[in-house]
Amino acid sequence: MTSERSVPPTISEVAAAAGVGRSTAARTLGGYGYVGQELRERVLEAADRLGYRANALARSMSTGVSQTLGVIVADIANPFFGGVVRGISDAAKARGVETLVLSTYEDLAEEIAATNVLIDKRVDGIVVASAALDAASAGHIQEARDRGIPVVLVDRAVTGLHLDAVVIDNRDAARGAVTRLLDAGHRRVGFVWGPPVEERPRRRRELIDLAARNLWTDGERLQGYLDALDDAGMAFDADLVMVGAKTEEHAQVEVERMLDLESPPTALFCTENDAVTGALRALRARGVRVGADISLIGFDDSSWAAVMEPPLTMIEQPTLALGTRAAEVLFAAIDGESGAAELHTLKTRYIERSSVAPPPAG
Amino acid sequence: MTSERSVPPTISEVAAAAGVGRSTAARTLGGYGYVGQELRERVLEAADRLGYRANALARSMSTGVSQTLGVIVADIANPFFGGVVRGISDAAKARGVETLVLSTYEDLAEEIAATNVLIDKRVDGIVVASAALDAASAGHIQEARDRGIPVVLVDRAVTGLHLDAVVIDNRDAARGAVTRLLDAGHRRVGFVWGPPVEERPRRRRELIDLAARNLWTDGERLQGYLDALDDAGMAFDADLVMVGAKTEEHAQVEVERMLDLESPPTALFCTENDAVTGALRALRARGVRVGADISLIGFDDSSWAAVMEPPLTMIEQPTLALGTRAAEVLFAAIDGESGAAELHTLKTRYIERSSVAPPPAG
Repeated sequence: MTSERSVPPTISEVAAAAGVGRSTAARTLGGYGYVGQELRERVLEAADRLGYRANALARSMSTGVSQTLGVIVADIANPFFGGVVRGISDAAKARGVETLVLSTYEDLAEEIAATNVLIDKRVDGIVVASAALDAASAGHIQEARDRGIPVVLVDRAVTGLHLDAVVIDNRDAARGAVTRLLDAGHRRVGFVWGPPVEERPRRRRELIDLAARNLWTDGERLQGYLDALDDAGMAFDADLVMVGAKTEEHAQVEVERMLDLESPPTALFCTENDAVTGALRALRARGVRVGADISLIGFDDSSWAAVMEPPLTMIEQPTLALGTRAAEVLFAAIDGESGAAELHTLKTRYIERSSVAPPPAG
Repeated sequence: MTSERSVPPTISEVAAAAGVGRSTAARTLGGYGYVGQELRERVLEAADRLGYRANALARSMSTGVSQTLGVIVADIANPFFGGVVRGISDAAKARGVETLVLSTYEDLAEEIAATNVLIDKRVDGIVVASAALDAASAGHIQEARDRGIPVVLVDRAVTGLHLDAVVIDNRDAARGAVTRLLDAGHRRVGFVWGPPVEERPRRRRELIDLAARNLWTDGERLQGYLDALDDAGMAFDADLVMVGAKTEEHAQVEVERMLDLESPPTALFCTENDAVTGALRALRARGVRVGADISLIGFDDSSWAAVMEPPLTMIEQPTLALGTRAAEVLFAAIDGESGAAELHTLKTRYIERSSVAPPPAG
């Protein structure tokens, strides 16, 4: 064993012999930080002269490198993830840990590359809002764990992956919101933000599968919408569900299509901010008044929703809490205190404003 | 010189002797990535046996680590920075470079810690929206450059620091927007988002200094507001400038204060999204109608502004372009192709909607 050999020279001795500072020697021999070529060679020469060997070097490698967490999110430009990252980094800073964030823009290949970078950069743990839909496509997450890097999922669970995941009550939140619309007397409720498929599936099972296969949260929210219809003993109508590109522009197109139906919706449930603004564009274009001619409940509250005319009733996600909880679960794993993998579900808040009213008479 | 010694064994030879894969040997000897304790010791033992020395080790350190950029922004949760980061990472991906993002929440101490982490993690370059106001408080940026890591500033210039900076035309944009309000006949234009000071300075020079000392862009935008007043030969009134906490809540308080003035503003220029929503809260609370009783122009267009009633006239910042340009300038520096430090100024876009009207008669 390496421990049986005589004690090798210290970094300070190498530094002195090289005529450089200890930190320069530590960086050169530890393999972190930047050291200019000439200084590097002087240090390596001295290390060589003094017989400074790899094992001592290995020990030095663990010194001086600051503790870091890696966070992989779908889109940093989405205020939802901005809040989650803020929550994670606040919790990390409280432990003196820095947070490195990478954005994948929902591209699994980018997520794999980001994971490899974080492994390369020797982060102490990873929080990821994964685009992987099952264990089969989550090999990169398994690899990080195989290398001893704890991983916690946030915002989305990954089916078949036995990992802690911190999510919100998507299905219950959607079920509750749609139930409020039905309780207000609405019988035709549009669901804005469906699966990105060309052709509209007629069967609900197929619709849910397509949504869930695109994004876990989409499937959960659509399921909640269907739960509410079931609770009220109401039939499902595929024409009231948006399908196609998940963009503000297409949400407008789909809501205008719904307004043209023989029996158009009297209420809309929008499960993303872009779904809300897209729907509002459609309603404005058709002169349909929110909170009067049509009711609307949206997902992801923002300061804008409160100053709309009328102020919009929204579902608020606890973005900061999602982040801080994910960080806590990760730190428990880093400290070796974590138990069996759990699904940590945080509650959303229903913020009642003025965009829900009874359906117009007649 | 090291080159005069006999050629040391290769990593592959060490790997073979240790009975591990080449990548495991490379990670152990290169000091990057994670290697389990037992494998690590086997590799180090073999390296030792074969006389694998630090100089060979040093060469191996430069291999296998993916290229990365570091980006330090004020607040990742701010969609403006989300767009900038998206622009940077798109440009980086095009070169096969990954982007690591850190958020400082406008805390200079956090910015220094973030810079040190990026130096530790051996990024190839850094883009920073710095909270430093002058060269004296930018020692950390100088340190990164001293270590051979190119740095490019984005969103804010740092006085006295000879560095490339990619910014928008803050002063011209503000001057142009306020001029449009004056051209529409307004004589009392409120400026929403001032310096975070308790007491309201009466002298304009002091006001600008305080704003600029808090944030470079704030000073530029306030200066543009004053330029427009000067162009129109109009007197400056300190009561029409918000001071105090830079929050949506306080913006509401300050706008309500302006509405209570003996001669209240007939138009508002809001230089941040939170200033816009705060002002709208105040106007709603007082029953003042935007685009009729009062005109409003805001900074940072968002999809929400377009669906407001009435749709808001806004100044759009080229967030993606700010990011891509910053990345291009940084890559030029990394490739050693950069010349003298420049201030790269990108143009904003004035998006005319329906929130500007002539002042109400009488």
